[in-house]
Amino acid sequence: MRARVTVTLKSGVLDPQGKAIEGALKALGIAGVASVRQGKVFDIELEGEDVARAEGALKDAAEKLLANPIIENYRIEVVG
Amino acid sequence: MRARVTVTLKSGVLDPQGKAIEGALKALGIAGVASVRQGKVFDIELEGEDVARAEGALKDAAEKLLANPIIENYRIEVVG
Repeated sequence: MRARVTVTLKSGVLDPQGKAIEGALKALGIAGVASVRQGKVFDIELEGEDVARAEGALKDAAEKLLANPIIENYRIEVVG
Repeated sequence: MRARVTVTLKSGVLDPQGKAIEGALKALGIAGVASVRQGKVFDIELEGEDVARAEGALKDAAEKLLANPIIENYRIEVVG
């Protein structure tokens, strides 16, 4: 089973890396960019076919390792 | 207009960071993880309402700055 966990900064948390990318895009002449925020994505291959169990394991993984719940949100999608 | 650019490693490209996360998840006792690959996500706020133009700018941004087309794939989604 494949799944994707997307981790993004909560709104209000400063994102200096996103700001730097925003500046670089402007310097490259790419028009119309108002803001950029960077996040992370984890493509995870899981053993077994039990979706509920996989979602439980992924929630555990996100809260213990993949995301910092104080400053980041995460979203789990089981792709199939 | 909001858009998301997702950048992932092409298959076949080694991902030591993903491997390290895989090892850490196993060490934490999270069962059933077969493999992990890490990618990046960029949430971009764009000025204007012209979707075709925005997609053009985002393709430009992805190829010039956000992704390395030799080893990475990217996907553009205009969220609305």
